[in-house]
Amino acid sequence: MEREVERQLRILRRGVAEIVPEEELKSKINKSLRTGKPLRVKLGLDPTAPDIHLGHTVVLQKLRQFQELGHQIIIIIGDFTGRIGDPSGKSETRHQLTEAEVKANAETYKEQIFKILDPDLTRVTFNSHWLAPLSFADLIQLARKVTVARMLERDDFARRYQQNQPIGVHEFFYPLMQGYDSIALDADVELGGTDQKFNLLMGRQLQREYGQEPQVAMMMPILPGLDGIQKMSKSLGNYIGINETPREIFGKTMSLPDEMMLTYFELVTTVPLEELEHLRDGLANGSLHPRDVKMQLAREIVTMYHGEAAAREAEKEFRQVFQQGGLPDDIPVVTVAAGVVWLPRLLVQAGLAPSTSEARRLICQGAVRLDGERFLDPEAEIEVRDGLILQAGKRRFARLALLESE
Amino acid sequence: MEREVERQLRILRRGVAEIVPEEELKSKINKSLRTGKPLRVKLGLDPTAPDIHLGHTVVLQKLRQFQELGHQIIIIIGDFTGRIGDPSGKSETRHQLTEAEVKANAETYKEQIFKILDPDLTRVTFNSHWLAPLSFADLIQLARKVTVARMLERDDFARRYQQNQPIGVHEFFYPLMQGYDSIALDADVELGGTDQKFNLLMGRQLQREYGQEPQVAMMMPILPGLDGIQKMSKSLGNYIGINETPREIFGKTMSLPDEMMLTYFELVTTVPLEELEHLRDGLANGSLHPRDVKMQLAREIVTMYHGEAAAREAEKEFRQVFQQGGLPDDIPVVTVAAGVVWLPRLLVQAGLAPSTSEARRLICQGAVRLDGERFLDPEAEIEVRDGLILQAGKRRFARLALLESE
Repeated sequence: MEREVERQLRILRRGVAEIVPEEELKSKINKSLRTGKPLRVKLGLDPTAPDIHLGHTVVLQKLRQFQELGHQIIIIIGDFTGRIGDPSGKSETRHQLTEAEVKANAETYKEQIFKILDPDLTRVTFNSHWLAPLSFADLIQLARKVTVARMLERDDFARRYQQNQPIGVHEFFYPLMQGYDSIALDADVELGGTDQKFNLLMGRQLQREYGQEPQVAMMMPILPGLDGIQKMSKSLGNYIGINETPREIFGKTMSLPDEMMLTYFELVTTVPLEELEHLRDGLANGSLHPRDVKMQLAREIVTMYHGEAAAREAEKEFRQVFQQGGLPDDIPVVTVAAGVVWLPRLLVQAGLAPSTSEARRLICQGAVRLDGERFLDPEAEIEVRDGLILQAGKRRFARLALLESE
Repeated sequence: MEREVERQLRILRRGVAEIVPEEELKSKINKSLRTGKPLRVKLGLDPTAPDIHLGHTVVLQKLRQFQELGHQIIIIIGDFTGRIGDPSGKSETRHQLTEAEVKANAETYKEQIFKILDPDLTRVTFNSHWLAPLSFADLIQLARKVTVARMLERDDFARRYQQNQPIGVHEFFYPLMQGYDSIALDADVELGGTDQKFNLLMGRQLQREYGQEPQVAMMMPILPGLDGIQKMSKSLGNYIGINETPREIFGKTMSLPDEMMLTYFELVTTVPLEELEHLRDGLANGSLHPRDVKMQLAREIVTMYHGEAAAREAEKEFRQVFQQGGLPDDIPVVTVAAGVVWLPRLLVQAGLAPSTSEARRLICQGAVRLDGERFLDPEAEIEVRDGLILQAGKRRFARLALLESE
């Protein structure tokens, strides 16, 4: 049994940023094996951003690992907390969602989550079930357990308080509610990004106050976006949405900086640990070409969301478009507003020409391609598209990312 | 009508520390006279200290004035807020009262309040009526209106936060609840001590947020105790309880420093404004003797709580005990623990003798009196009593006050 505990721990440690405390996770797994009772593993989702991108899947992949090890996954759609909006890591009070918005977002969420998790083995629940019936007196009991000073230790609250930005008193309810969710579910483990540390630890504290064995807080790193630097986010345009087309997902993945590949394999794919080792070693000793590894990554990701056939098709198309072989491993991403643009201006915007007159000259010379297709009309009006690849001459490329408002 | 407004304002301004804003009080009175609708005047009582002393009566006397002017008095027994305990002006989180304690205290409160207010014209209500049914969602709406920074401006919160003393998150609910009381009652005026300013203004803010005409905040000064310096309070032993005997009330009043007399007349008696003027002038130009004025004050106070006959009796007794004329206007109050004490030690404690041997000498010489009665036994064991007057020689006196734990 000791070996089985170690096996589970090894799988569960994959890609994790922090486990508080790891010793307790070990003893919980041990107990679960002894009693045959699966661990209750909780993830709370704030239903404000219904379009899931790879950044969101990092915790979902971890849940899938728990699920494959036989544990009980409980997804909490924060329909009640959504009425407040968690400002974690944000510098401003969020706008309050209507009940209708929350419900609609929750449905979209569920659809997407089940591309990763097994719906038959996943319990999805809404925290309004136990939060809405709480009375004022119950809430007093709950709030009594935490001090104002402790609340103001949370990074974003601390920063906003310091900078004289308003924090609504109701925002203090958020960590209390999230903690109460853990009590309501008697959670063994709660997952979250590293930006959720305060809230996860609050759950531990409150469970203890309510006489429960405190949950283990498991924090996943924040996934860098296509630029390899900033957090993947829709508003930064550096994301891969799981609902995007195979072609878009494949192409965007190919634009990822090489040094990000292993991180992506580890956090957003299901390749086994042994394969991860193999890739790491192969890249290190040069036996694997980065280009091939990135192709594999792109195939893995497309396969997860669209199946193997679509992945093969996307790869084939990608190779055809760039069969002239000029596609470099790193293509800079350029964010542009949606709409129709005069091609020479687009080339300037993308940094492929210093001026529109120079851009016209390049076009007339036959040096400009869009997704591999040559454009010869210097008056062309182009409808920009996410993932569109511009090429000027043999060696200069840019990949467009649409600027979207969240 | 303008004259009636001015008349009411003159009466209502009596003794007041602050009216925020006075202009609104004037226009509210004006409107009340025009429409024939009395003002709704609110006082919240925190049912933690059921023994009312004169300090508590300052706001009650103001309510009585409103009542005599035909306005509607609403006393809120904070049975629900009592579950939290308001830390206003306190440096520590109060202990939470049980529901049974709160109810019992509330009954005792009502009994005593009606010694000052007309029960037939006073509405007494419990804030659990409207606070207990509030849902979590309602509370979020309420808390949303106020920022954490605003809360931390409250003097006691600011001090405790500064000094790293814990403030429970639930304590932030208190001003919200008190403010919501004003909304529930659609209050025109709320009364309180100057230490309640933050909470009273919170009521104004929340009423405005909920679309009501904001209440006027009327703050009464804090009554100094028998020492003339510190706030009257049971724990300091410098108080006159309205349930004390006529003899105790009379005697304690006589121990008040002269310079406090007019303040007491203004804040805790019902003598009309004209009489107040007369007393002020008389003391200033010497046409009235301080001793006589203080006797009148003592009579007024005893009459309010025990009737005229009892006041006459208390005065007679007081004069008899001190008929030898040695009783000075100011007798220092000495706080001692309850119990039985050896008389010489008591004299030392009271500062009437430098040592017990000196005290024994004084007793044997016949120089020691208790409440005017000579004591000759240097071994006497005395049961100390609140208000007991010790005398050593012709000119040295002390009045005992029992140290009580609140």
